[in-house]
Amino acid sequence: MTALLTQNEIDQALATLDGWSRSGSQITRTFVLPSFPAALVFTCTVGHLAERADHHPDILVTYRKVTLTLSTHSAGGLTRKDVDLAGEINAVV
Amino acid sequence: MTALLTQNEIDQALATLDGWSRSGSQITRTFVLPSFPAALVFTCTVGHLAERADHHPDILVTYRKVTLTLSTHSAGGLTRKDVDLAGEINAVV
Repeated sequence: MTALLTQNEIDQALATLDGWSRSGSQITRTFVLPSFPAALVFTCTVGHLAERADHHPDILVTYRKVTLTLSTHSAGGLTRKDVDLAGEINAVV
Repeated sequence: MTALLTQNEIDQALATLDGWSRSGSQITRTFVLPSFPAALVFTCTVGHLAERADHHPDILVTYRKVTLTLSTHSAGGLTRKDVDLAGEINAVV
């Protein structure tokens, strides 16, 4: 099982993850796209990265806003998987 | 502006909309797809219908579950737009 991150490790990771914030055992970021179709394309891009990583964020599309929420449910909190996928997503914005 | 539906009209519509239920001023349905990629494809299909109708549900993807929530915010509740789009979505399931 992937190890839970310590508070210090989470703080260090968030310092490098533009736009992401912690909410309990999750990290979340809302992306505002130019349009609803653009939000859909972004959702599919995130989905591709998620499937490749075998790690899947919750994805909420509200018109042209896409809110992603990451947590490692099997570990009961935040792990390297969450931080890594957040970084990959930020890299395609 | 599109007219709000009466309680009776909403009840009649829901009787024909398999799987949809009312929650206050919204209607919602959760679809369970075979996989996460299938959930993404379904999300894009819903998005296409939404864009065509110029009426956009909130879309929540949690792994292979897709929860759609429809309301006509400009009218402050449920209108024919919500019922019509729910019907179109059900037709492609």
